[in-house]
This record gives sequence, structure tokens and C-alpha cells, in this order.
Amino acid sequence: MSVEVTKLKNGMTVVLNPMPHLETVALGTWIKAGSRNEDENEHGIAHFLEHMAFKGTKKRTSRQIVEAIEDVGGDINAATSIESTSYFTRLLGDDINLGMDVLHDILENSTFEEAEIEREKHVILQEIGAANDVPDDLVFDNFQDTAFDGQPIGRPILGTPETVKSFGKDDLNNYLGKHYRGPNMVLSASGKIDCDKLLTKAEELYSGFPSSLADEPVASNYIGGESFTKRDNAETQLVIGFEGRAYHARDFYASQLLSMILGGGMSSRLFQEVREKHGLCYSIYSFHWGFSDSGIFGVHAATETEDIPKLMPIILDELKRAAQDIDKHEVDRARAQIRAGLMMSMESPSSRATQLARQIMLFGRPVTNEELMDRLTAISTERITDLAGRLFTQSNPTIAAVGSVDKVMKQAEIADYLGSQVTNKTA
Amino acid sequence: MSVEVTKLKNGMTVVLNPMPHLETVALGTWIKAGSRNEDENEHGIAHFLEHMAFKGTKKRTSRQIVEAIEDVGGDINAATSIESTSYFTRLLGDDINLGMDVLHDILENSTFEEAEIEREKHVILQEIGAANDVPDDLVFDNFQDTAFDGQPIGRPILGTPETVKSFGKDDLNNYLGKHYRGPNMVLSASGKIDCDKLLTKAEELYSGFPSSLADEPVASNYIGGESFTKRDNAETQLVIGFEGRAYHARDFYASQLLSMILGGGMSSRLFQEVREKHGLCYSIYSFHWGFSDSGIFGVHAATETEDIPKLMPIILDELKRAAQDIDKHEVDRARAQIRAGLMMSMESPSSRATQLARQIMLFGRPVTNEELMDRLTAISTERITDLAGRLFTQSNPTIAAVGSVDKVMKQAEIADYLGSQVTNKTA
Repeated sequence: MSVEVTKLKNGMTVVLNPMPHLETVALGTWIKAGSRNEDENEHGIAHFLEHMAFKGTKKRTSRQIVEAIEDVGGDINAATSIESTSYFTRLLGDDINLGMDVLHDILENSTFEEAEIEREKHVILQEIGAANDVPDDLVFDNFQDTAFDGQPIGRPILGTPETVKSFGKDDLNNYLGKHYRGPNMVLSASGKIDCDKLLTKAEELYSGFPSSLADEPVASNYIGGESFTKRDNAETQLVIGFEGRAYHARDFYASQLLSMILGGGMSSRLFQEVREKHGLCYSIYSFHWGFSDSGIFGVHAATETEDIPKLMPIILDELKRAAQDIDKHEVDRARAQIRAGLMMSMESPSSRATQLARQIMLFGRPVTNEELMDRLTAISTERITDLAGRLFTQSNPTIAAVGSVDKVMKQAEIADYLGSQVTNKTA
Repeated sequence: MSVEVTKLKNGMTVVLNPMPHLETVALGTWIKAGSRNEDENEHGIAHFLEHMAFKGTKKRTSRQIVEAIEDVGGDINAATSIESTSYFTRLLGDDINLGMDVLHDILENSTFEEAEIEREKHVILQEIGAANDVPDDLVFDNFQDTAFDGQPIGRPILGTPETVKSFGKDDLNNYLGKHYRGPNMVLSASGKIDCDKLLTKAEELYSGFPSSLADEPVASNYIGGESFTKRDNAETQLVIGFEGRAYHARDFYASQLLSMILGGGMSSRLFQEVREKHGLCYSIYSFHWGFSDSGIFGVHAATETEDIPKLMPIILDELKRAAQDIDKHEVDRARAQIRAGLMMSMESPSSRATQLARQIMLFGRPVTNEELMDRLTAISTERITDLAGRLFTQSNPTIAAVGSVDKVMKQAEIADYLGSQVTNKTA
């Protein structure tokens, strides 16, 4: 593995990972700003801007943008998340200059024509509608909104029909100007690349972005709570969660291991207990999401109405049991799973480019697999049980459900069951 | 690219693609039988068997099956489709023998204990419920069922609650005995592999599967029709389709190109017209699925109620226009997209193992990228317009909708609009 990290004059980072045996390349520009960087009146604009980047520049119409890439067989796409926005393309290695030109063009030269804005609003309203129709999209949106009640980090990324309808050209330029700045941007490429040429090209293209620092988002404050949405569905979707650990927090890696042990694979405790022993769910897993200043530890499950009263105590019992006793063998397995996952992603240019861009945004540098594995190896079973004890009793539970919600345990019942030591907070 | 194809004594094919620069391996066993190979009283058993393969063997409990793989960081999974079933694992290359042992064990030595059967029925009932709750899963199930009315190829892969509840150990052994036979099976591995060792091991492990041929499924008969399911959703899901072309049919590759041109990417006609020009949909694309003796050419769209009357004629106009005039530039782009896609999948062990297994099942041999590209290059624009003319007028339309279905055009209206030359068929 050879990774080259360079800072451009305006503070933008370029991270390059040549994979000499490949013929293709994965290339993208990441911006360290997403939905949580929106002001109150900007809810949904990070995502709206990501859409509008494809709607025409000073040099290309929207059709010419996608034709440029697809004419050579590539594809181009973009994604908005809570803390970042990314624009990426996959191409044959010989077409990398074209990919560089197009990616830069849509970021710096977009014109945001009024007619295009109005049309794209209609597309996003449909995207919001579709997400609302899918029960497990909806339950996660409601969950996040409840966990971080009233805060940008909790709001649905797509915005609401009302906020989306309110946006104009100036709003787009304003958000772009505030967040698309050199120190906030990372260009990442993996695959068939010539590092020197790519660097020269990057310096040439991206020098127009300002070198001034962007404002930090407002600090997040995990609150917890409950959200129940009645739907006449076959299955009831549930997410139960707690405050997790930020990327830089001491317990971040221990939380990742705990999530793997509790519900990370088919041999995990929740899968074995809930699905294999009791046959109660098709989908059951846990997850740990780190943010820059907070985190979420959660469990997702879907089950039919009559099984809800049986399912919930089984899940909560597993949370309690994790605080009492974890076997060394389970920790070793979780580490092996993470290690193999790292090696698999080393072999995929898309996974590599994404992983390196995220490491630059989070830690300011690439993190080697060895360093990551050393951190994981240093974590004892006692530290994980200790963490589990704190995670599930020292933060207010969040419960979100979509479906037949009457039999779902309320927040207070979950807190009681777990012996929670907190009293309710409010925003 | 070096690919080794070997037939074992019992007729099973082993296809191996060493990728010497990798540390990991993708390994799987494919069975050329899926839901369409089920008898009337077996609806859902191919998928049920695929689940039951993980529920215990003569040598391992269900927990030991997944622990064996996950202890070394790998993962194991399986999938059932209309014409095939697959069991696959991703591992570090050094663990390949373990992967081979476990994959074989679950295929030949599963015990199908009654208690496990009953528990797994409950899991699958939940899987059926969850699929029914997701509007675009449901619309595709209904579409396929309507296109091939009353035939195994059209039935939902998961089965119905009634059929799933009816299965016992003998049913599982019966389906397995009929279809899991050497000539119907392919072992495919890509990545860090030693071909000689792997072949010896495969011959050793798989010799117990019979060499007799499996019965062919009943021939399929595309019928077409309409399926409307009212749901109180934000978006109405639509699939409009026609009879496509079988894998071996002369027009198979032309159909693939036509689908790419019509709705395969962001520069495609449907995306440009429906989303970019009119802003009517978030999701709009076309697809062409080949089966061994039939095919489906279809368009998927989702839109809000008020836009349905505007959307449907735009889609149908594009189908008509494809029969009149296609630009050489569009065909070149479609070919470039397919070519780049092939090169990207050559670099991923999972994609390669899957692609090779499918080629063995469909064509009896690996198909090189050069051969595939030669076939595509030989197709003129005239052949594609000619095909479009026949596709959309010489087979009955199928229309499936989930949502606000009142304003959706009926089958007869679609046929009229397109100037269809067929009269209704029945099963």
C-alpha cells in the first residue's frame, strides 16, 4: 500500500492510492459538511445543492455533464450525509483527466438556473415521498430526529417539502460559499493513477476555492425519546438506541467491537438469540455510528405485531448480558471480522477512495490497517463489558417504531427494564 | 485473465479465476434451479431450502456453521432467484479450505430437523411480510406474476404464508434430490487461489452429488396483463413491461443495448426526458432481464398521483420513438458503458466469481470480454430500432401499479397508445 497525501495551496487535501494492477479508477471530491451544517432556514439545502450540481455549469448543460462521463462508459454520482457530501466517478484509468474536469466543473461552475431549480424541487419532493413510503427508511429518519431532538444533526437529510420549496439561487450560493472551502475539501483517487499528473491537475483546477476556514457546526446534544408512527403494515419496524461515541472518543473502537459482538453478523448474540433460537425476526442487527462530537449505538429489528411483546425483552436482555460477560473468543472474532473487511476494501478502488477520504476528514491523515488493528488489539473484554454497562444505563433510550406501535415498549419502560440511571433531558 | 474450467466426474463444473495480486477470495456454489423449478405444491421451497441449509448439518449446528466462517473474519450468505440458487462466502485466501468445507457441508449434509423447520417458517413469514411492506418490492413481484400469469416463473420467490407453512423435511429432501445434481452445479472461485489444490478438494467433496440430469422446468409463456394494488402511499409505483429476449435468442444483446439507451443511465432517454426535462420522477429506469427461454423488457417509475396522467404518455412516447430513430452516438455510449462495467467487474473477486458461474450456467462456458464486445459491435442502429418496433407492439403490455392506481393507464389503453398488434392471450 502506498498512499500519498498532499495539501494544495488553499488547504484542500489530495489523497492518492495507486493500485498498479488495475485498469480502472475511483475518483471523488468530499466536502466535510452535510445536513448538520445547515442553518435553521436551510434544512435540506446540502442535499439540494448536491442535486443542483448536476443541473448545468458555465461550460456544460446538465445533459453534457452526464454525457461526458457516460460516453466513455463511466458513471458519476453524489451523496449527502449528516457530516459530509461527496461527488464521485468511476472510470477507466485512461479517462481520469475527463473525470477530474467534470467533477471540478460541477463544484465550481454550477449556474443554478431558476428553471432548473424549480424542476429539481419537484424531483426532490418525490424523493421525500418515496422515502416516507419505505417503513425502514422512515423509522431511521424518525429515530435520528428523536435522538437529537430539535437539532440539525437529527433532521432528515432530504429536508421537508416546505423547506425544499423555499430555496433559491442565493441560498445555494450561500451554503456553497460557506462550506465548499479548501480546508474542508478532500480529493481522493484510487486505482490506475499517475500521482504527479493528478496532483498538478488538482492544483490547477481547485485553486479557486477559498483557503479560509468554514464554521464548525453547532455542538450536538444527544437527548433520546420516543417516536411512534402508526402504519397498517405487516411488520412493525423498531430502532432502539443510545448515545454512542464520537470518532475521537476513547471508547470509539470499543463501541465498534461491542456492536459487532452484539449484532454484527450471523454469529452475533442478537442474530443467534432472536432469529436462530426464537425465529422472531428476519432482520435483526446492531450498529454504531460515530459523528465528530457524538455517536449512536442502536439495534434495528422488524417483527409482526403479535411478537413485539416477546421480542423487546429478548433484545434488552442481550444489552444487559453484554454488560456482565463477554467471551474472549467473541472479541477475537469481532477483530477478525474487522480485519478481513479492511483487507477486502483494500482490493476495491471505490472502497479505498472512500475510506481514505473519510480518514482525512475525521483524523486529518490516512490510518493504516496495522494502526487500526493495534488499537483493536489493545481493547480487553473487561473494557467492552464496562462500556456496555455505561452505554445502556447512562444515556436515555431512544425508541422509534413504525407499524403496529401500541405494543411497543415506551421509553420509560425501556429505561426501567435496563435500570437506567438517568432522568429525562429535554432539548 | 486466466480462467480454468474443469468438469468433475459427476458433471459438476468448477470455474477458477486466480487473481494473483489479491489476498482474499470469493467462493460459491451455484445450482441451476430456483423458484421456477418448483412444482405446484412446492411454491417457495427453493428459497426455504436455501434458508434451511444454514440450520444444521450432520457435523455442525447452525451456530457452528456461521461461527466457522466468521471466526476467521469471513462472511457467508445465499440467494435464491428465479432460475438459480447460490451459496457464497468471502474469506482471506488462506482460509479457503475452511470455506470449501463449510459450503459443501451445508449443501450435502443438512439434517432439516423438525424444530428448526418450524422456527425458520416463522422467519420466512416475516420476510414475506417485510417485502409486502416495501412498495417497490411489491410492484415487481406483482409485475412478474402478471407477465407470466399462473406459471412458476411468475410466482414470488418467497412463496406464500400458506405454502411455506406446508413444507416438511421430505419436501426439502425431495427438491434437493431433484435439482442439486452434478450437471446442475457450478463451483466458482476468484481471487487468491491455488487451482490444483482447489480442484482436488472439489472432486473429493462433491463426488456424492449424483451425475444424473435434472428435469428441465416447464416452458414459460409470456402473457401480459394488469395488476393494480391500492395503497395510501405518497408515491405510486409503476412497472410497464413487454416480452423480452432469452439469453440464447438472437436479439438478446440488442435488447441489452436498447435498455441501456432507453433507461440505463443518467444520459439515457427516459432519465433525460422524464426527470431532467419534466422533473416528474426521482426513480426512472428501464431493464432487460433474460431467462433461459424468455425475457422481460420493462420500465420502472415512481411518481405522485397528480403526475401519473402526464408521466405515462411521456414514457410510452419514448418507447415509440426508440422504434423510429436511434443515433449511432447513443449506441456507442451504451457499448462503452457495458465495456467499462465489464472491466470494473474483472477487478472484483465477487463480481468475477458470480459472472463466471452465470456464464457456465447459461452458456456452458466462460465468455470473454472480447467475445461479448464483438457481439455488441456487430449490432447496427437499424437492428435496435427494428427490435424496439417489435418489442413494444408484438407482445401484450404488462402494467403493475401500487399506490393511487385509479389514474394509471390500463393494459388496453397502453396497447392502443403503442399501436399494439396483438390480441389478448390467456394462460
